[in-house]
Amino acid sequence: MPDGTAIGREALRDVPAREVRQAIRDGRWRGTTHDMARGFVQANLAILPESHALDFLRFCLRNPKPCPLLDVTDTGNPEPARAAPGADLRTDLSRYVVYRHGKKAAEVSDLRDLWRPDHVGFVMGCSLSFDAALAEDGIDPAELRRGQQGAQARIPVYTSSVDCVPAGPFRGPLVVSLKPVPRHLADRVRQVTERYPLAHGGPVHVGDPAAIGVDPSRAEWTEACAIGPDEVPMFWACGVTPQAIALAAGIPEMITHATGHMFVTDLTLEDIRR
Amino acid sequence: MPDGTAIGREALRDVPAREVRQAIRDGRWRGTTHDMARGFVQANLAILPESHALDFLRFCLRNPKPCPLLDVTDTGNPEPARAAPGADLRTDLSRYVVYRHGKKAAEVSDLRDLWRPDHVGFVMGCSLSFDAALAEDGIDPAELRRGQQGAQARIPVYTSSVDCVPAGPFRGPLVVSLKPVPRHLADRVRQVTERYPLAHGGPVHVGDPAAIGVDPSRAEWTEACAIGPDEVPMFWACGVTPQAIALAAGIPEMITHATGHMFVTDLTLEDIRR
Repeated sequence: MPDGTAIGREALRDVPAREVRQAIRDGRWRGTTHDMARGFVQANLAILPESHALDFLRFCLRNPKPCPLLDVTDTGNPEPARAAPGADLRTDLSRYVVYRHGKKAAEVSDLRDLWRPDHVGFVMGCSLSFDAALAEDGIDPAELRRGQQGAQARIPVYTSSVDCVPAGPFRGPLVVSLKPVPRHLADRVRQVTERYPLAHGGPVHVGDPAAIGVDPSRAEWTEACAIGPDEVPMFWACGVTPQAIALAAGIPEMITHATGHMFVTDLTLEDIRR
Repeated sequence: MPDGTAIGREALRDVPAREVRQAIRDGRWRGTTHDMARGFVQANLAILPESHALDFLRFCLRNPKPCPLLDVTDTGNPEPARAAPGADLRTDLSRYVVYRHGKKAAEVSDLRDLWRPDHVGFVMGCSLSFDAALAEDGIDPAELRRGQQGAQARIPVYTSSVDCVPAGPFRGPLVVSLKPVPRHLADRVRQVTERYPLAHGGPVHVGDPAAIGVDPSRAEWTEACAIGPDEVPMFWACGVTPQAIALAAGIPEMITHATGHMFVTDLTLEDIRR
Protein backbone atom coordinates (compact mmCIF):
# COMPACT_ATOMS: atom_id res chain seq x y z
CA MET A 1 0.00 0.00 0.00
CA PRO A 2 1.28 3.51 -0.82
CA ASP A 3 1.34 4.83 2.74
CA GLY A 4 2.71 1.64 4.20
CA THR A 5 0.02 1.48 6.90
CA ALA A 6 -2.95 -0.27 5.32
CA ILE A 7 -3.24 -4.00 5.92
CA GLY A 8 -5.02 -6.90 4.28
CA ARG A 9 -8.01 -8.90 5.50
CA GLU A 10 -5.90 -12.00 6.01
CA ALA A 11 -3.69 -10.22 8.53
CA LEU A 12 -6.74 -9.57 10.71
CA ARG A 13 -8.33 -12.99 10.40
CA ASP A 14 -7.01 -14.68 13.51
CA VAL A 15 -6.06 -11.75 15.73
CA PRO A 16 -7.79 -10.68 18.96
CA ALA A 17 -10.79 -8.39 18.47
CA ARG A 18 -8.96 -5.39 19.87
CA GLU A 19 -6.40 -5.54 17.05
CA VAL A 20 -9.16 -5.24 14.48
CA ARG A 21 -10.64 -2.29 16.37
CA GLN A 22 -7.21 -0.66 16.61
CA ALA A 23 -6.58 -1.11 12.87
CA ILE A 24 -9.91 0.54 12.16
CA ARG A 25 -9.29 3.31 14.70
CA ASP A 26 -5.91 4.01 13.09
CA GLY A 27 -7.42 4.13 9.61
CA ARG A 28 -5.47 1.06 8.52
CA TRP A 29 -8.63 -0.89 7.73
CA ARG A 30 -11.77 0.58 6.16
CA GLY A 31 -13.48 -2.54 4.80
CA THR A 32 -16.12 -4.89 6.16
CA THR A 33 -15.38 -7.07 9.18
CA HIS A 34 -16.45 -10.37 7.61
CA ASP A 35 -14.11 -13.22 8.58
CA MET A 36 -12.01 -11.06 10.92
CA ALA A 37 -10.97 -11.78 14.52
CA ARG A 38 -12.50 -15.20 14.11
CA GLY A 39 -13.99 -16.62 17.30
CA PHE A 40 -15.03 -13.18 18.55
CA VAL A 41 -18.62 -12.03 18.50
CA GLN A 42 -19.43 -9.27 16.03
CA ALA A 43 -22.32 -6.95 16.75
CA ASN A 44 -24.89 -4.54 15.39
CA LEU A 45 -24.64 -0.95 16.62
CA ALA A 46 -27.38 1.59 17.21
CA ILE A 47 -26.82 5.04 18.70
CA LEU A 48 -29.80 7.05 19.84
CA PRO A 49 -30.36 10.27 21.79
CA GLU A 50 -31.12 9.62 25.46
CA SER A 51 -34.66 10.91 24.89
CA HIS A 52 -35.40 7.71 22.95
CA ALA A 53 -33.09 5.35 24.83
CA LEU A 54 -35.55 4.09 27.46
CA ASP A 55 -38.18 3.16 24.87
CA PHE A 56 -35.58 1.58 22.61
CA LEU A 57 -34.25 -0.42 25.53
CA ARG A 58 -37.76 -1.60 26.35
CA PHE A 59 -38.19 -2.54 22.70
CA CYS A 60 -35.02 -4.65 22.83
CA LEU A 61 -36.07 -6.37 26.06
CA ARG A 62 -39.50 -7.18 24.64
CA ASN A 63 -38.07 -8.47 21.37
CA PRO A 64 -34.92 -10.33 22.40
CA LYS A 65 -34.73 -12.46 19.24
CA PRO A 66 -34.24 -9.56 16.79
CA CYS A 67 -32.54 -7.33 19.41
CA PRO A 68 -30.29 -9.42 21.65
CA LEU A 69 -28.62 -6.83 23.89
CA LEU A 70 -24.92 -7.32 24.53
CA ASP A 71 -24.27 -3.90 26.03
CA VAL A 72 -25.73 -0.43 26.59
CA THR A 73 -23.41 2.49 27.26
CA ASP A 74 -23.77 5.19 29.83
CA THR A 75 -25.22 8.35 28.33
CA GLY A 76 -22.47 10.28 26.54
CA ASN A 77 -19.87 7.57 27.12
CA PRO A 78 -18.76 5.81 23.90
CA GLU A 79 -17.16 2.87 25.73
CA PRO A 80 -19.20 -0.37 25.74
CA ALA A 81 -17.45 -1.56 28.89
CA ARG A 82 -19.07 -4.98 29.10
CA ALA A 83 -18.74 -6.06 25.46
CA ALA A 84 -15.31 -4.51 24.82
CA PRO A 85 -13.55 -2.65 27.65
CA GLY A 86 -11.47 0.22 26.26
CA ALA A 87 -13.27 0.27 22.92
CA ASP A 88 -14.66 3.51 21.48
CA LEU A 89 -17.89 3.37 19.50
CA ARG A 90 -16.95 6.67 17.78
CA THR A 91 -13.86 5.29 16.06
CA ASP A 92 -13.80 1.51 16.19
CA LEU A 93 -16.20 0.74 13.36
CA SER A 94 -15.10 1.23 9.77
CA ARG A 95 -18.32 2.78 8.48
CA TYR A 96 -21.44 4.31 9.99
CA VAL A 97 -24.79 5.45 8.63
CA VAL A 98 -26.55 8.51 10.04
CA TYR A 99 -30.33 8.58 9.76
CA ARG A 100 -32.37 11.70 10.47
CA HIS A 101 -36.16 11.71 10.66
CA GLY A 102 -36.30 8.26 9.07
CA LYS A 103 -34.05 9.07 6.10
CA LYS A 104 -30.41 8.28 5.43
CA ALA A 105 -28.57 11.57 5.89
CA ALA A 106 -24.89 10.59 5.69
CA GLU A 107 -22.39 7.75 5.65
CA VAL A 108 -19.19 8.43 7.58
CA SER A 109 -16.02 6.59 8.61
CA ASP A 110 -15.94 7.90 12.17
CA LEU A 111 -18.14 9.74 14.65
CA ARG A 112 -15.58 12.07 16.21
CA ASP A 113 -17.56 15.11 15.05
CA LEU A 114 -21.03 13.64 15.47
CA TRP A 115 -20.96 12.04 18.93
CA ARG A 116 -22.87 14.07 21.51
CA PRO A 117 -23.14 14.05 25.34
CA ASP A 118 -26.73 12.79 25.06
CA HIS A 119 -25.89 9.78 22.88
CA VAL A 120 -26.47 6.23 24.10
CA GLY A 121 -24.90 3.27 22.30
CA PHE A 122 -26.61 -0.12 21.96
CA VAL A 123 -24.55 -3.17 21.03
CA MET A 124 -26.64 -6.11 19.81
CA GLY A 125 -25.70 -9.63 18.77
CA CYS A 126 -25.66 -10.43 15.07
CA SER A 127 -25.94 -13.54 12.94
CA LEU A 128 -22.28 -13.56 11.88
CA SER A 129 -21.80 -15.70 14.99
CA PHE A 130 -24.20 -18.16 13.36
CA ASP A 131 -21.72 -19.42 10.78
CA ALA A 132 -18.94 -19.72 13.35
CA ALA A 133 -21.19 -21.71 15.68
CA LEU A 134 -22.22 -24.05 12.88
CA ALA A 135 -18.63 -24.53 11.78
CA GLU A 136 -17.65 -25.32 15.37
CA ASP A 137 -20.37 -27.97 15.36
CA GLY A 138 -19.04 -29.51 12.17
CA ILE A 139 -21.58 -28.04 9.75
CA ASP A 140 -20.01 -26.28 6.77
CA PRO A 141 -21.79 -22.91 6.56
CA ALA A 142 -21.08 -22.88 2.80
CA GLU A 143 -23.46 -25.80 2.50
CA LEU A 144 -26.27 -23.49 3.61
CA ARG A 145 -25.43 -20.96 0.93
CA ARG A 146 -26.28 -22.99 -2.14
CA GLY A 147 -27.84 -20.84 -4.83
CA GLN A 148 -26.08 -17.78 -3.48
CA GLN A 149 -22.98 -16.38 -5.12
CA GLY A 150 -19.87 -16.81 -3.01
CA ALA A 151 -19.15 -16.47 0.67
CA GLN A 152 -19.79 -12.73 0.58
CA ALA A 153 -23.33 -13.15 -0.79
CA ARG A 154 -25.84 -11.44 1.46
CA ILE A 155 -28.25 -13.64 3.35
CA PRO A 156 -31.79 -13.16 2.00
CA VAL A 157 -33.81 -10.90 4.28
CA TYR A 158 -37.57 -10.26 4.25
CA THR A 159 -40.15 -8.24 6.13
CA SER A 160 -42.49 -10.76 7.80
CA SER A 161 -46.14 -10.45 8.78
CA VAL A 162 -45.20 -11.03 12.44
CA ASP A 163 -45.46 -7.91 14.60
CA CYS A 164 -42.83 -7.03 17.17
CA VAL A 165 -43.98 -6.15 20.68
CA PRO A 166 -44.13 -2.34 20.60
CA ALA A 167 -42.46 0.12 22.98
CA GLY A 168 -43.23 3.82 22.70
CA PRO A 169 -42.72 4.94 19.08
CA PHE A 170 -40.95 1.70 18.20
CA ARG A 171 -43.41 -0.67 16.54
CA GLY A 172 -43.67 -2.66 13.34
CA PRO A 173 -42.95 -5.99 11.68
CA LEU A 174 -40.19 -8.45 12.42
CA VAL A 175 -37.56 -8.64 9.69
CA VAL A 176 -36.33 -12.18 9.15
CA SER A 177 -33.36 -13.81 7.46
CA LEU A 178 -33.89 -16.97 5.42
CA LYS A 179 -31.63 -19.95 5.02
CA PRO A 180 -32.70 -22.87 2.84
CA VAL A 181 -31.27 -25.72 4.91
CA PRO A 182 -30.74 -29.24 3.51
CA ARG A 183 -33.40 -31.37 5.15
CA HIS A 184 -30.92 -33.72 6.84
CA LEU A 185 -29.28 -30.76 8.62
CA ALA A 186 -32.41 -28.89 9.73
CA ASP A 187 -32.61 -30.32 13.26
CA ARG A 188 -28.94 -29.77 13.96
CA VAL A 189 -28.99 -26.22 12.63
CA ARG A 190 -31.96 -25.48 14.87
CA GLN A 191 -30.24 -26.99 17.90
CA VAL A 192 -26.97 -25.16 17.33
CA THR A 193 -28.60 -21.76 16.90
CA GLU A 194 -30.84 -22.26 19.93
CA ARG A 195 -27.70 -22.29 22.04
CA TYR A 196 -26.89 -18.70 21.04
CA PRO A 197 -29.81 -16.50 22.16
CA LEU A 198 -27.47 -13.49 21.98
CA ALA A 199 -26.92 -14.16 18.27
CA HIS A 200 -30.69 -14.23 17.50
CA GLY A 201 -31.12 -17.75 18.92
CA GLY A 202 -33.19 -20.48 17.34
CA PRO A 203 -35.38 -20.01 14.26
CA VAL A 204 -38.59 -17.98 14.57
CA HIS A 205 -40.22 -20.09 11.87
CA VAL A 206 -39.51 -23.30 9.97
CA GLY A 207 -41.42 -24.35 6.86
CA ASP A 208 -44.02 -22.63 4.69
CA PRO A 209 -42.79 -19.04 4.14
CA ALA A 210 -46.35 -17.85 3.45
CA ALA A 211 -47.26 -18.62 7.07
CA ILE A 212 -45.23 -15.57 8.10
CA GLY A 213 -46.08 -13.51 5.01
CA VAL A 214 -42.86 -14.13 3.10
CA ASP A 215 -42.50 -14.89 -0.61
CA PRO A 216 -38.87 -16.00 -1.12
CA SER A 217 -39.10 -15.57 -4.89
CA ARG A 218 -39.55 -11.84 -4.40
CA ALA A 219 -36.42 -9.72 -3.91
CA GLU A 220 -36.91 -7.30 -1.03
CA TRP A 221 -34.06 -6.25 1.25
CA THR A 222 -31.73 -8.50 -0.73
CA GLU A 223 -32.03 -10.83 -3.72
CA ALA A 224 -34.72 -13.48 -4.15
CA CYS A 225 -34.00 -16.96 -2.85
CA ALA A 226 -34.75 -20.30 -4.49
CA ILE A 227 -35.61 -23.20 -2.18
CA GLY A 228 -34.72 -26.64 -3.49
CA PRO A 229 -36.91 -29.76 -3.12
CA ASP A 230 -34.62 -31.21 -0.43
CA GLU A 231 -34.34 -27.97 1.50
CA VAL A 232 -36.33 -26.62 4.43
CA PRO A 233 -36.83 -22.84 4.58
CA MET A 234 -35.69 -21.72 8.04
CA PHE A 235 -36.21 -18.17 9.29
CA TRP A 236 -34.36 -16.30 12.00
CA ALA A 237 -35.05 -12.90 13.56
CA CYS A 238 -32.79 -10.41 11.81
CA GLY A 239 -30.71 -7.61 13.31
CA VAL A 240 -32.06 -5.24 10.67
CA THR A 241 -35.35 -5.22 12.60
CA PRO A 242 -34.55 -2.51 15.19
CA GLN A 243 -33.05 -0.30 12.49
CA ALA A 244 -36.09 -0.70 10.22
CA ILE A 245 -38.41 0.01 13.12
CA ALA A 246 -36.52 3.06 14.35
CA LEU A 247 -36.53 4.46 10.82
CA ALA A 248 -40.25 3.80 10.40
CA ALA A 249 -40.78 5.65 13.69
CA GLY A 250 -39.17 8.68 12.05
CA ILE A 251 -37.21 9.56 15.17
CA PRO A 252 -35.00 12.64 14.81
CA GLU A 253 -31.70 10.80 14.74
CA MET A 254 -30.23 7.32 14.76
CA ILE A 255 -26.70 6.24 13.91
CA THR A 256 -25.89 2.63 13.01
CA HIS A 257 -23.04 0.54 11.65
CA ALA A 258 -23.06 0.29 7.84
CA THR A 259 -24.01 -3.15 6.52
CA GLY A 260 -21.10 -5.56 6.99
CA HIS A 261 -19.07 -3.04 8.98
CA MET A 262 -19.80 -4.54 12.36
CA PHE A 263 -18.53 -3.75 15.85
CA VAL A 264 -16.04 -6.46 16.82
CA THR A 265 -16.49 -7.23 20.53
CA ASP A 266 -14.16 -8.97 22.99
CA LEU A 267 -16.85 -11.57 23.67
CA THR A 268 -16.24 -15.08 22.38
CA LEU A 269 -18.74 -17.62 21.14
CA GLU A 270 -18.13 -19.45 24.42
CA ASP A 271 -19.11 -16.31 26.36
CA ILE A 272 -22.54 -16.13 24.72
CA ARG A 273 -23.29 -19.84 24.56
CA ARG A 274 -25.94 -21.11 26.89
CA MET B 1 -64.28 -15.21 58.16
CA PRO B 2 -66.67 -12.51 59.36
CA ASP B 3 -67.28 -10.85 55.98
CA GLY B 4 -67.46 -14.13 54.10
CA THR B 5 -64.90 -13.00 51.52
CA ALA B 6 -61.49 -13.69 52.98
CA ILE B 7 -59.90 -16.99 52.04
CA GLY B 8 -57.15 -19.21 53.39
CA ARG B 9 -53.67 -19.87 52.06
CA GLU B 10 -54.58 -23.47 51.20
CA ALA B 11 -57.31 -22.33 48.81
CA LEU B 12 -54.72 -20.42 46.78
CA ARG B 13 -52.00 -23.05 46.80
CA ASP B 14 -52.66 -24.75 43.49
CA VAL B 15 -54.66 -22.17 41.58
CA PRO B 16 -53.48 -20.21 38.51
CA ALA B 17 -51.48 -17.07 39.29
CA ARG B 18 -54.28 -14.78 38.16
CA GLU B 19 -56.57 -16.13 40.90
CA VAL B 20 -54.06 -15.14 43.55
CA ARG B 21 -53.76 -11.66 41.99
CA GLN B 22 -57.56 -11.36 41.86
CA ALA B 23 -57.92 -12.39 45.51
CA ILE B 24 -55.39 -9.74 46.47
CA ARG B 25 -57.00 -7.13 44.22
CA ASP B 26 -60.38 -7.86 45.79
CA GLY B 27 -58.96 -7.58 49.30
CA ARG B 28 -59.68 -11.24 50.03
CA TRP B 29 -56.00 -12.00 50.70
CA ARG B 30 -53.57 -9.68 52.49
CA GLY B 31 -50.83 -12.11 53.55
CA THR B 32 -47.56 -13.20 52.01
CA THR B 33 -47.51 -15.18 48.77
CA HIS B 34 -45.29 -18.00 49.99
CA ASP B 35 -46.48 -21.38 48.70
CA MET B 36 -49.25 -19.88 46.55
CA ALA B 37 -50.03 -20.56 42.88
CA ARG B 38 -47.35 -23.23 42.97
CA GLY B 39 -45.53 -23.66 39.67
CA PHE B 40 -45.83 -19.98 38.83
CA VAL B 41 -42.89 -17.62 39.07
CA GLN B 42 -43.05 -15.03 41.84
CA ALA B 43 -41.21 -11.76 41.42
CA ASN B 44 -39.65 -8.75 43.08
CA LEU B 45 -41.19 -5.39 42.22
CA ALA B 46 -39.55 -1.99 41.94
CA ILE B 47 -41.35 1.16 40.82
CA LEU B 48 -39.29 4.23 39.93
CA PRO B 49 -39.94 7.59 38.34
CA GLU B 50 -39.07 7.67 34.63
CA SER B 51 -36.22 10.07 35.42
CA HIS B 52 -34.34 7.16 37.02
CA ALA B 53 -35.69 4.34 34.87
CA LEU B 54 -32.99 4.33 32.17
CA ASP B 55 -30.15 4.13 34.70
CA PHE B 56 -31.97 1.50 36.74
CA LEU B 57 -32.56 -0.54 33.59
CA ARG B 58 -28.87 -0.29 32.74
CA PHE B 59 -28.08 -1.39 36.29
CA CYS B 60 -30.28 -4.46 35.87
CA LEU B 61 -28.75 -5.35 32.51
CA ARG B 62 -25.23 -5.02 33.92
CA ASN B 63 -26.06 -7.07 37.01
CA PRO B 64 -28.34 -9.81 35.72
CA LYS B 65 -27.71 -12.18 38.64
CA PRO B 66 -29.15 -9.92 41.37
CA CYS B 67 -31.58 -8.18 38.95
CA PRO B 68 -32.97 -10.70 36.45
CA LEU B 69 -35.50 -8.66 34.47
CA LEU B 70 -38.79 -10.38 33.72
CA ASP B 71 -40.65 -7.27 32.55
CA VAL B 72 -40.53 -3.48 32.38
CA THR B 73 -43.75 -1.53 31.98
CA ASP B 74 -44.44 1.39 29.68
CA THR B 75 -44.18 4.68 31.53
CA GLY B 76 -47.40 5.28 33.45
CA ASN B 77 -48.88 1.90 32.55
CA PRO B 78 -49.21 -0.46 35.55
CA GLU B 79 -49.69 -3.57 33.39
CA PRO B 80 -46.63 -5.83 33.09
CA ALA B 81 -47.89 -7.24 29.80
CA ARG B 82 -45.14 -9.81 29.28
CA ALA B 83 -45.02 -11.32 32.77
CA ALA B 84 -48.76 -11.17 33.50
CA PRO B 85 -51.11 -9.77 30.85
CA GLY B 86 -54.06 -8.03 32.46
CA ALA B 87 -52.35 -7.67 35.83
CA ASP B 88 -52.17 -4.32 37.62
CA LEU B 89 -49.08 -3.50 39.66
CA ARG B 90 -51.10 -0.96 41.69
CA THR B 91 -53.46 -3.51 43.17
CA ASP B 92 -52.17 -7.03 42.65
CA LEU B 93 -49.61 -7.19 45.45
CA SER B 94 -50.76 -7.50 49.03
CA ARG B 95 -48.29 -5.03 50.54
CA TYR B 96 -45.93 -2.34 49.28
CA VAL B 97 -43.20 -0.22 50.84
CA VAL B 98 -42.68 3.39 49.77
CA TYR B 99 -39.15 4.79 50.15
CA ARG B 100 -38.39 8.48 49.79
CA HIS B 101 -34.83 9.87 49.70
CA GLY B 102 -33.46 6.55 50.94
CA LYS B 103 -35.80 6.18 53.91
CA LYS B 104 -38.91 4.07 54.42
CA ALA B 105 -41.83 6.50 54.22
CA ALA B 106 -44.89 4.26 54.26
CA GLU B 107 -46.21 0.74 53.99
CA VAL B 108 -49.47 0.41 52.05
CA SER B 109 -51.79 -2.30 50.77
CA ASP B 110 -52.39 -0.76 47.35
CA LEU B 111 -51.03 1.99 45.13
CA ARG B 112 -54.29 3.40 43.77
CA ASP B 113 -53.51 6.81 45.27
CA LEU B 114 -49.75 6.74 44.78
CA TRP B 115 -49.30 5.60 41.18
CA ARG B 116 -48.29 8.43 38.84
CA PRO B 117 -48.11 8.90 35.06
CA ASP B 118 -44.29 8.99 35.27
CA HIS B 119 -43.97 5.67 37.11
CA VAL B 120 -42.18 2.71 35.55
CA GLY B 121 -42.56 -0.79 37.00
CA PHE B 122 -39.74 -3.35 37.03
CA VAL B 123 -40.56 -7.01 37.60
CA MET B 124 -37.54 -9.13 38.56
CA GLY B 125 -37.13 -12.83 39.19
CA CYS B 126 -36.82 -13.98 42.80
CA SER B 127 -35.43 -16.98 44.59
CA LEU B 128 -38.80 -18.42 45.57
CA SER B 129 -38.55 -20.26 42.24
CA PHE B 130 -35.41 -21.85 43.65
CA ASP B 131 -37.24 -24.18 46.03
CA ALA B 132 -39.76 -25.19 43.38
CA ALA B 133 -36.98 -25.98 40.92
CA LEU B 134 -35.14 -28.06 43.49
CA ALA B 135 -38.30 -29.93 44.44
CA GLU B 136 -38.98 -30.63 40.77
CA ASP B 137 -35.51 -32.12 40.56
CA GLY B 138 -36.16 -34.35 43.56
CA ILE B 139 -34.27 -32.34 46.18
CA ASP B 140 -36.32 -31.56 49.27
CA PRO B 141 -35.88 -27.81 49.86
CA ALA B 142 -36.48 -28.44 53.57
CA GLU B 143 -33.21 -30.32 53.66
CA LEU B 144 -31.44 -27.05 52.86
CA ARG B 145 -33.11 -25.29 55.77
CA ARG B 146 -31.54 -27.19 58.63
CA GLY B 147 -30.87 -24.94 61.55
CA GLN B 148 -33.58 -22.58 60.51
CA GLN B 149 -36.96 -22.54 62.16
CA GLY B 150 -39.73 -23.87 59.96
CA ALA B 151 -40.60 -23.41 56.33
CA GLN B 152 -41.34 -19.72 56.79
CA ALA B 153 -37.85 -18.99 58.16
CA ARG B 154 -36.14 -16.27 56.20
CA ILE B 155 -33.11 -17.22 54.17
CA PRO B 156 -29.95 -15.66 55.67
CA VAL B 157 -28.92 -12.59 53.66
CA TYR B 158 -25.62 -10.66 53.84
CA THR B 159 -23.96 -7.67 52.24
CA SER B 160 -20.91 -9.01 50.39
CA SER B 161 -17.63 -7.31 49.50
CA VAL B 162 -18.35 -7.81 45.78
CA ASP B 163 -19.24 -4.61 43.95
CA CYS B 164 -22.06 -4.47 41.43
CA VAL B 165 -21.35 -2.88 38.04
CA PRO B 166 -22.57 0.71 38.51
CA ALA B 167 -25.04 2.65 36.34
CA GLY B 168 -25.64 6.33 37.03
CA PRO B 169 -26.44 6.81 40.73
CA PHE B 170 -26.94 3.08 41.23
CA ARG B 171 -23.77 1.57 42.70
CA GLY B 172 -22.77 -0.52 45.69
CA PRO B 173 -22.23 -4.03 47.00
CA LEU B 174 -23.94 -7.21 45.96
CA VAL B 175 -26.30 -8.60 48.59
CA VAL B 176 -26.17 -12.40 48.75
CA SER B 177 -28.33 -15.14 50.19
CA LEU B 178 -26.69 -18.09 51.91
CA LYS B 179 -27.72 -21.70 51.96
CA PRO B 180 -25.65 -24.26 53.85
CA VAL B 181 -26.00 -27.21 51.48
CA PRO B 182 -25.22 -30.81 52.49
CA ARG B 183 -21.97 -31.67 50.71
CA HIS B 184 -23.48 -34.54 48.73
CA LEU B 185 -26.09 -32.21 47.23
CA ALA B 186 -23.86 -29.24 46.37
CA ASP B 187 -23.21 -30.12 42.74
CA ARG B 188 -26.84 -30.87 42.01
CA VAL B 189 -28.04 -27.71 43.70
CA ARG B 190 -25.56 -25.72 41.61
CA GLN B 191 -26.67 -27.40 38.41
CA VAL B 192 -30.37 -26.94 39.06
CA THR B 193 -30.05 -23.24 39.89
CA GLU B 194 -27.83 -22.58 36.86
CA ARG B 195 -30.77 -23.53 34.69
CA TYR B 196 -32.79 -20.59 36.04
CA PRO B 197 -30.89 -17.38 35.23
CA LEU B 198 -34.14 -15.44 35.65
CA ALA B 199 -34.37 -16.65 39.27
CA HIS B 200 -30.82 -15.45 40.10
CA GLY B 201 -29.17 -18.41 38.33
CA GLY B 202 -26.23 -20.38 39.69
CA PRO B 203 -24.33 -19.47 42.87
CA VAL B 204 -22.06 -16.41 42.82
CA HIS B 205 -19.76 -18.06 45.34
CA VAL B 206 -19.24 -21.49 46.89
CA GLY B 207 -17.03 -22.09 49.91
CA ASP B 208 -15.20 -19.78 52.31
CA PRO B 209 -17.63 -16.97 53.21
CA ALA B 210 -14.71 -14.65 54.08
CA ALA B 211 -13.64 -14.67 50.42
CA ILE B 212 -16.64 -12.47 49.67
CA GLY B 213 -16.54 -10.58 52.95
CA VAL B 214 -19.29 -12.50 54.73
CA ASP B 215 -19.34 -13.68 58.35
CA PRO B 216 -22.31 -16.07 58.64
CA SER B 217 -22.19 -15.97 62.43
CA ARG B 218 -23.11 -12.30 62.32
CA ALA B 219 -26.80 -11.41 61.96
CA GLU B 220 -27.26 -8.70 59.36
CA TRP B 221 -30.31 -8.50 57.14
CA THR B 222 -31.65 -11.63 58.82
CA GLU B 223 -30.52 -14.00 61.58
CA ALA B 224 -27.05 -15.54 61.81
CA CYS B 225 -26.50 -18.90 60.15
CA ALA B 226 -24.57 -21.90 61.45
CA ILE B 227 -22.78 -24.03 58.87
CA GLY B 228 -22.35 -27.69 59.80
CA PRO B 229 -19.21 -29.77 59.20
CA ASP B 230 -20.84 -31.65 56.31
CA GLU B 231 -22.28 -28.55 54.70
CA VAL B 232 -20.95 -26.27 51.99
CA PRO B 233 -21.85 -22.58 52.23
CA MET B 234 -23.35 -21.59 48.86
CA PHE B 235 -24.15 -17.98 48.01
CA TRP B 236 -26.56 -16.61 45.44
CA ALA B 237 -27.16 -13.06 44.26
CA CYS B 238 -30.15 -11.74 46.20
CA GLY B 239 -33.10 -9.72 44.93
CA VAL B 240 -32.65 -7.33 47.84
CA THR B 241 -29.61 -5.93 46.00
CA PRO B 242 -31.35 -3.42 43.69
CA GLN B 243 -33.50 -2.17 46.55
CA ALA B 244 -30.49 -1.72 48.84
CA ILE B 245 -28.62 0.08 46.09
CA ALA B 246 -31.49 2.37 45.14
CA LEU B 247 -31.92 3.28 48.79
CA ALA B 248 -28.20 3.96 49.21
CA ALA B 249 -28.40 6.22 46.15
CA GLY B 250 -30.99 8.26 48.05
CA ILE B 251 -33.18 8.72 44.99
CA PRO B 252 -36.33 10.76 45.63
CA GLU B 253 -38.76 7.83 45.44
CA MET B 254 -38.90 4.09 45.03
CA ILE B 255 -41.78 1.74 45.69
CA THR B 256 -41.23 -1.99 46.20
CA HIS B 257 -43.13 -5.09 47.27
CA ALA B 258 -42.95 -5.73 51.03
CA THR B 259 -40.81 -8.72 52.03
CA GLY B 260 -42.66 -11.93 51.21
CA HIS B 261 -45.51 -10.11 49.47
CA MET B 262 -44.36 -10.90 45.96
CA PHE B 263 -45.88 -10.24 42.56
CA VAL B 264 -47.24 -13.56 41.26
CA THR B 265 -46.63 -13.72 37.50
CA ASP B 266 -48.20 -15.90 34.82
CA LEU B 267 -44.77 -17.29 33.93
CA THR B 268 -44.08 -20.90 34.83
CA LEU B 269 -40.79 -22.50 35.86
CA GLU B 270 -40.78 -24.07 32.40
CA ASP B 271 -41.00 -20.59 30.81
CA ILE B 272 -37.85 -19.39 32.53
CA ARG B 273 -35.81 -22.59 32.34
CA ARG B 274 -32.93 -22.58 29.93
